[in-house]
Amino acid sequence: MKIDLISTGSHVTSELVKNATVIVIDVLRATSVIITALKNGAKSVVPVTSVEEALDTKKKLENVILGGERKAQKIEGFELSNSPLAYTSTAVHDKNVILTTTNGTHAITKSSAADKVYIGALLNAKAVSQKAAGEESDVVIVNSGTDGSFSMDDFIASGAIIDEILQNGVYELTDVAKTALLIYRTHQDFFSYIKEAKHYKLLMDLGLEEDIRFCLQKDLYDIVPEYKNGIIKLHF
Amino acid sequence: MKIDLISTGSHVTSELVKNATVIVIDVLRATSVIITALKNGAKSVVPVTSVEEALDTKKKLENVILGGERKAQKIEGFELSNSPLAYTSTAVHDKNVILTTTNGTHAITKSSAADKVYIGALLNAKAVSQKAAGEESDVVIVNSGTDGSFSMDDFIASGAIIDEILQNGVYELTDVAKTALLIYRTHQDFFSYIKEAKHYKLLMDLGLEEDIRFCLQKDLYDIVPEYKNGIIKLHF
Repeated sequence: MKIDLISTGSHVTSELVKNATVIVIDVLRATSVIITALKNGAKSVVPVTSVEEALDTKKKLENVILGGERKAQKIEGFELSNSPLAYTSTAVHDKNVILTTTNGTHAITKSSAADKVYIGALLNAKAVSQKAAGEESDVVIVNSGTDGSFSMDDFIASGAIIDEILQNGVYELTDVAKTALLIYRTHQDFFSYIKEAKHYKLLMDLGLEEDIRFCLQKDLYDIVPEYKNGIIKLHF
Repeated sequence: MKIDLISTGSHVTSELVKNATVIVIDVLRATSVIITALKNGAKSVVPVTSVEEALDTKKKLENVILGGERKAQKIEGFELSNSPLAYTSTAVHDKNVILTTTNGTHAITKSSAADKVYIGALLNAKAVSQKAAGEESDVVIVNSGTDGSFSMDDFIASGAIIDEILQNGVYELTDVAKTALLIYRTHQDFFSYIKEAKHYKLLMDLGLEEDIRFCLQKDLYDIVPEYKNGIIKLHF
């Protein structure tokens, strides 16, 4: 079995993910938001790629709350931003969260040709790794990236997840997967590497340091969201 | 000014390279071959993407010698393989080398929308970096990769070249460029990182260790080949 890594959602093709178990990562912040929302009792998260699609989807569902960002900030008319700290139990319990973000929700929807699509972040690194290893198939880690490009925060989180997967099975790693693992093993504090990331700097400039600290907590939660038929839930 | 890196030739688009100075790298071994051939007196190197195109091009040129590989081995009917050690002065002096390889020649031809396309490897790392910095434009380092994927050997060589470019100007680095630089700075012997590369293992299995040792000599040559109008030469 193999572990590969795709460093931005825009490079995902059906060919690259078919028959594989995909773990989609957008540490800062979409997949951290999804995991937190479901942990705090949301019934589902529906990832959509545009504001228009979010508003259309809202008409078809009940108990809806709208969340997401453009340029890292809350969308006009939406209840929630893309801060995981906003997805409290009070805000999301029993709700269907419709989420649209610049990078993460695209990467998720583009991965739908995979055998299984799990949602990963540092928050559930160990749990998602165990789940993926249990599939006994090739694993492809899809980094959402930032604006179509490689993102350091997703890359090191991939390394952490690869490290965990290797504790649960024997895999051959591609060159890029080996490099992510090496980056993680030499920067297990995360910050010493991530502080150079473009997206980290953008969020810091927007005063979102608390969000970053929250997202960099490894294994805070032991849940594994799955994306299937357009919806993300904990159990299908 | 910015330095970006594209980790495989298959991801190169006109949009990503236009108005930029591109350095194409295929350390193991196409760009190492090109640099060596021109250093040893070849008049030009013509990169082509198929065996058929090589044979067609041969009909149109004089003083031709055919070189290249498929699956890392010499092509039937070709005079030279893809080993830089074969491109001696005796073999290539005053010749036009028609070269077709699996990864490198594709990456070069796909970069043609750039403002300038220089050929780089560890062999000419310092020279190509100085040349690129002299253009005072954005720099995009195109890694040929291996079979459409990220290749550790090209990635660390990119880091070495970025390190040199930064000694000649002030640049903003993208996340992937920063990561390549970090990998180089923490593995300046090259082998401690490259020994894990898929392509390194393939070449070692084929008994090509001498080729690898040759290609990993940083700054052996001070020449900078340029690709223009389908041809690679030292001076246009």
